[in-house]
Amino acid sequence: MRKYNVAVIGATGLVGSTILKILEERNFPIDHIYFLSSKKSAGNQIVFKDNEYTVEELNEDSFNKDIDFAFFAAGGTVSEKYANIAVDKGIRVIDNSSIYRMEEEVPLVVPEVNPDEIFNSRGIISNPNCSTIQSVLPLKPLHDNFKIKRIIFSTYQAVSGSGLGGIKDLEDGQIEFYPYQIQGNALPHIDSFLENGYTKEEMKMINETKKILKDDSIKITATTVRVPVKHCHSVSVNLEFERTFELEDVYKVLEQFDGVIVKDDVQNNKYPMPLDVEGSDKVYVGRIRRDFSLDNGLNLWIVADNIRKGAATNAVQIAELLIKD
Amino acid sequence: MRKYNVAVIGATGLVGSTILKILEERNFPIDHIYFLSSKKSAGNQIVFKDNEYTVEELNEDSFNKDIDFAFFAAGGTVSEKYANIAVDKGIRVIDNSSIYRMEEEVPLVVPEVNPDEIFNSRGIISNPNCSTIQSVLPLKPLHDNFKIKRIIFSTYQAVSGSGLGGIKDLEDGQIEFYPYQIQGNALPHIDSFLENGYTKEEMKMINETKKILKDDSIKITATTVRVPVKHCHSVSVNLEFERTFELEDVYKVLEQFDGVIVKDDVQNNKYPMPLDVEGSDKVYVGRIRRDFSLDNGLNLWIVADNIRKGAATNAVQIAELLIKD
Repeated sequence: MRKYNVAVIGATGLVGSTILKILEERNFPIDHIYFLSSKKSAGNQIVFKDNEYTVEELNEDSFNKDIDFAFFAAGGTVSEKYANIAVDKGIRVIDNSSIYRMEEEVPLVVPEVNPDEIFNSRGIISNPNCSTIQSVLPLKPLHDNFKIKRIIFSTYQAVSGSGLGGIKDLEDGQIEFYPYQIQGNALPHIDSFLENGYTKEEMKMINETKKILKDDSIKITATTVRVPVKHCHSVSVNLEFERTFELEDVYKVLEQFDGVIVKDDVQNNKYPMPLDVEGSDKVYVGRIRRDFSLDNGLNLWIVADNIRKGAATNAVQIAELLIKD
Repeated sequence: MRKYNVAVIGATGLVGSTILKILEERNFPIDHIYFLSSKKSAGNQIVFKDNEYTVEELNEDSFNKDIDFAFFAAGGTVSEKYANIAVDKGIRVIDNSSIYRMEEEVPLVVPEVNPDEIFNSRGIISNPNCSTIQSVLPLKPLHDNFKIKRIIFSTYQAVSGSGLGGIKDLEDGQIEFYPYQIQGNALPHIDSFLENGYTKEEMKMINETKKILKDDSIKITATTVRVPVKHCHSVSVNLEFERTFELEDVYKVLEQFDGVIVKDDVQNNKYPMPLDVEGSDKVYVGRIRRDFSLDNGLNLWIVADNIRKGAATNAVQIAELLIKD
């Protein structure tokens, strides 16, 4: 079996270090691995599969190595500066930042949903927004079967989505990363505000969902909220379908869809919760109910580990698709 | 000025003790006050306006006193057993429990929204559900001006809504009141589950909103979620109007409505948050944005102190209406 040379950019961050963990867990066939980081983290030691590695400083020469895949998880500025340099050297880039996601020639891939998009890549494949990834998994089979007309998202997002700074604000009760205390609070503010009154996070959910489901006709709105939860985002989703449906068919298509776990037995208090889902690579769906305010309406409650399936696991799954190809 | 004799049932609970605080703050004209409680709390001392009172045990003879108003805040079972006994003695009952709210002859009153309903009371006036109270305040002027067709509620509810047991679960990290840990978690489960897959809390928001706005034609759905916040509920609200609207008119009618504060300057990170709103009797509205997925759609984020405006303050305001009458 062929083995590959892999580079991880931003390996000391929350998503980067989880990518390493998942490459190990899934036994990704690695020949050599390189760790590239900002000057600040260069020189640090990283243990990967029982070997110790030194983090190298990322610079324009970093990609003059025999690298097959580069995972970028060091933020938009680093991806903007270096991703195309890597591509020019023939390296396949899997980018966790948002900057290339909406570019027409860049595939935005959730392997269970739109795996074939990888064939359209000219080098960069974007990893979608965390809340979007977990939402589109259950939405895909519902769209295929009942055709989604409109989606209303309200999110309950964990602080780990902001990286280690967010976790520190929650755990220490400090106000350093967020503009206000997150402990015991709820901030209707994720990423920066745009002219239209929406946050970038809200517009990511709206635009990326349409791109991944390949249907610009779906009407979408979103309100994204940070809550004092460490790991796992939750999303309250209201759907309107074109077609009539039976609730039992909703359960069936969700249960059959790869990557989705239906956890919905409310009479026994079974529903998805962040504390339960932490550490899982699956997307959990519950509170599945007809919305009686519409002819073809449905309510869902979706929970997933935002750092794993919402970021690192999805990125590694994209690399797995590329080597299967 | 006439003074009144008042009884508070459940004065040692979270809502009951806040009713006392608000009767003091608003200087409600009290001649004599009685404290009635279960056997467990009887004998306790309560300080009200610098006088010390002994809590009496509630029984069938408790209402053979010269009482004008009785605030019931001891749960549905107590209200069911004693509210009508009080009414039979000519006492006006303001009931915080849910049991009489949907009865046709019982007014369900939010003083800023439907004050005239008090004239229809035959004795009991119900105080609405906390999430419903804070939602209908901004909805009332919007319905009057633009006619609401459909509402989708997703709530972010504080543990104080469950009383002292909920607060203890949050603060001590224990699992006694809730079926699961609430610290660092989000539970899509408030009150018990019904046959149709909704919780009672969700159905309260749906049914009480229609009753208070006096319009059964409004289509409503809801998902209610407990979050690790001590005080103040937040609600993400999506609205569809019959009529077209200008965003500036939305701001205008909200700003002019009594009891509503518009806090919405996102470019300067100003939006309503639980930690800021705690202790206030106003309902805060922000994140006001057109929902571009619809012709006449609007998104709102509404925060209020669930124990004050969502319960105790609203109850005292109802009594104020009754004495003005």
